[in-house]
Amino acid sequence: MQTSKEIPGIPVSLPDSVRTAIRKAAATLPESGIIEVVNYGRERPDLIPFWVGEADVPTPAFICDAAIQALRDGHTFYTYQRGIPQLREAISAYHQRHFSIDVNSERIIVTSSGMQAMMETMQTLVGAGDEVLVVSPVWPNIYACIHMQQATAQSVPLQVREQEWRFDLDRLFDSCNNKTRVIYINSPGNPTGWVINYDDMIAVRDFARSQGLWIVADEVYGKFVYGGERATSFLELMEPDERLVVTNTFSKNWCMTGWRVGWVVIPRELGQVYENLVQYNTSGTPAFLQYGCLTAINEGDQFIEEFVQRCKQGRDLVCDHLLELPNVELVRPRGAFYLFFRVKGEPDSVALAKRMVDEANVGLAPGTAFGVGGAEFVRMCFAASHDTLRTGVERLSEALNPRNTQRSNTIGSKRT
Amino acid sequence: MQTSKEIPGIPVSLPDSVRTAIRKAAATLPESGIIEVVNYGRERPDLIPFWVGEADVPTPAFICDAAIQALRDGHTFYTYQRGIPQLREAISAYHQRHFSIDVNSERIIVTSSGMQAMMETMQTLVGAGDEVLVVSPVWPNIYACIHMQQATAQSVPLQVREQEWRFDLDRLFDSCNNKTRVIYINSPGNPTGWVINYDDMIAVRDFARSQGLWIVADEVYGKFVYGGERATSFLELMEPDERLVVTNTFSKNWCMTGWRVGWVVIPRELGQVYENLVQYNTSGTPAFLQYGCLTAINEGDQFIEEFVQRCKQGRDLVCDHLLELPNVELVRPRGAFYLFFRVKGEPDSVALAKRMVDEANVGLAPGTAFGVGGAEFVRMCFAASHDTLRTGVERLSEALNPRNTQRSNTIGSKRT
Repeated sequence: MQTSKEIPGIPVSLPDSVRTAIRKAAATLPESGIIEVVNYGRERPDLIPFWVGEADVPTPAFICDAAIQALRDGHTFYTYQRGIPQLREAISAYHQRHFSIDVNSERIIVTSSGMQAMMETMQTLVGAGDEVLVVSPVWPNIYACIHMQQATAQSVPLQVREQEWRFDLDRLFDSCNNKTRVIYINSPGNPTGWVINYDDMIAVRDFARSQGLWIVADEVYGKFVYGGERATSFLELMEPDERLVVTNTFSKNWCMTGWRVGWVVIPRELGQVYENLVQYNTSGTPAFLQYGCLTAINEGDQFIEEFVQRCKQGRDLVCDHLLELPNVELVRPRGAFYLFFRVKGEPDSVALAKRMVDEANVGLAPGTAFGVGGAEFVRMCFAASHDTLRTGVERLSEALNPRNTQRSNTIGSKRT
Repeated sequence: MQTSKEIPGIPVSLPDSVRTAIRKAAATLPESGIIEVVNYGRERPDLIPFWVGEADVPTPAFICDAAIQALRDGHTFYTYQRGIPQLREAISAYHQRHFSIDVNSERIIVTSSGMQAMMETMQTLVGAGDEVLVVSPVWPNIYACIHMQQATAQSVPLQVREQEWRFDLDRLFDSCNNKTRVIYINSPGNPTGWVINYDDMIAVRDFARSQGLWIVADEVYGKFVYGGERATSFLELMEPDERLVVTNTFSKNWCMTGWRVGWVVIPRELGQVYENLVQYNTSGTPAFLQYGCLTAINEGDQFIEEFVQRCKQGRDLVCDHLLELPNVELVRPRGAFYLFFRVKGEPDSVALAKRMVDEANVGLAPGTAFGVGGAEFVRMCFAASHDTLRTGVERLSEALNPRNTQRSNTIGSKRT
């Protein structure tokens, strides 16, 4: 059983001669826990992949066109380490327009992916011996960033009670000790779809203030909320110079996962530190990509709206279908674009995901990949077309239906 | 005076409240030492900038076109963490074609810049307490990568004797202690143009073998050699499973500095470690950019040849001009595309570079930016057009000419 201090994922097996020749933190960095199932199913013809966190449509043409124009205009030189000024201004305007938050563009740094935003943030905030409280189950890469810094993640698992993911504030507070430096919260959350409520945000903020902790808020799914119009941002609740870092990405809003551009909102005084980190990690993000991002953020509001609507309908299509099965337990996600569900009598999510490859020809991500509290669940991305979702969920229903027990058992016994 | 353990660059000034709230290694990361002069001259009309390491021409259209086609073809999704297989094969073929080295594509990892290749390499190899021997003066970012890992750089400075940059093998060997893990060598070198000779490479290799050290060879200027056809690569001298990492980039060969794509050649057994590091640092390099790189490397040999020829002529143009001045001391660089020169009676390179902004309207990089051994020099990039070089060097000659002492002294006294 996974303890709260382990990093989720698959340990890498290295020859002794190599393992001992490199840094321990690198040698012990695990492979993504999703990969075992992806490798298992990679070659299956007609497999429907719901295991990765991206939509099934390429980046809209109007965004590509802007990057293409910038390429043709010769924006192929070294550029501003903090991002081109126009994009930082446009990100500021985005916060104003969508969240009614006044974020000075001096607080915004463009990064080479949301992932890199998180790595640079952990490079800034934690080192050997430090601890980070991580609300889990969660995007597993956060654990790896913390581990790379030789810091330790302390998971604070959400739990399902009364059809909701419940956040345990007391457990968060109790997990804090004198080594704790950061509280990491991803809301709306991958993989659970949990959205932290306003009162809990205030409580976390007040606790962080009282203990001198940083809050790192990963708000990449901020527009993907299906109950109200939008999620609350920690930026609304804290002063510009407080210990808050908010990470974000172009990947999800505008189907730009392959572009690797993100951003971070920081206290203005940290600007030079982040500029240095950009310089020494990647030396900047391609300017011509940033022109594409500029068009996305300035002209892509309608795209977001339609895409979020598609995801909402996709969520309901998937949930309604799976809820017809007596053995499926799910919380209808309030945000993000994943369904994290479990199946009665199937506590081993890797085995379940592999069985779904075999029997449904559908790719799911095993919950073991997402840290403490996720082991019994599987994750399904519902940012696909409704036709694809319908086909996929019908196949899943067939394979999961307890009326087909005989067949399942046969396959199941082959597995073990 | 700079000691061998300091990081070159400009210390960042942070309010106490911020400095103490973040990680020390991040708070003490210096700003690039070039920036002080760039800031000083940024707004000057008609200033000729030779301070940055890039050519003055945008990426060739045939390369841009390939990336544009890939964008239009929808290669905008998450991609292989190690790089698209075609590009890794093409990089393997490049090594065969240009250096007659057989590098299995399994040993090649595509990275989000040569900078990121170096950061991932230091993340793999060193941690707190470790030491890295760095042949200097050198590209300053390497010091910062080492510092980020809480490791320490020990500079081994080159010295000018008899019109050549001389490498002191004994000093390298003597600087090694039981904390040393890595020897870092950038040859052909930025900023000096030094090219390590074959016998010294063998000696370094044998020493590294005897001590169990890693060699990290930064060979990004491998094609920019003006004496013979090409530089020797450490890949030619070592077995595939030895402790050698070679970093490279698309930036220099094909005028792609703004693309941020590089690669690294590693022992095959480290493949999964680097794949993980890519996953947790940037989660990959945009696939559509990699298609541009694929065309660059497959169809760009002639471009390299012409560009290197242009640089060689540019080198001679600049050197011949400056050598007419009795107070300029320079080594005609054997490789890379920088001239690193000093001026008698001008030991303060920041002051000299600022004076050249004022009096010549030319941007040079101060040698203080490049670590131990560089303080008295200034760096000039000669990858510009010959017309620009000619104008720039004429302006420099005018300002540096000792016959104009009166004027220089006047400005000089204003400075102090």
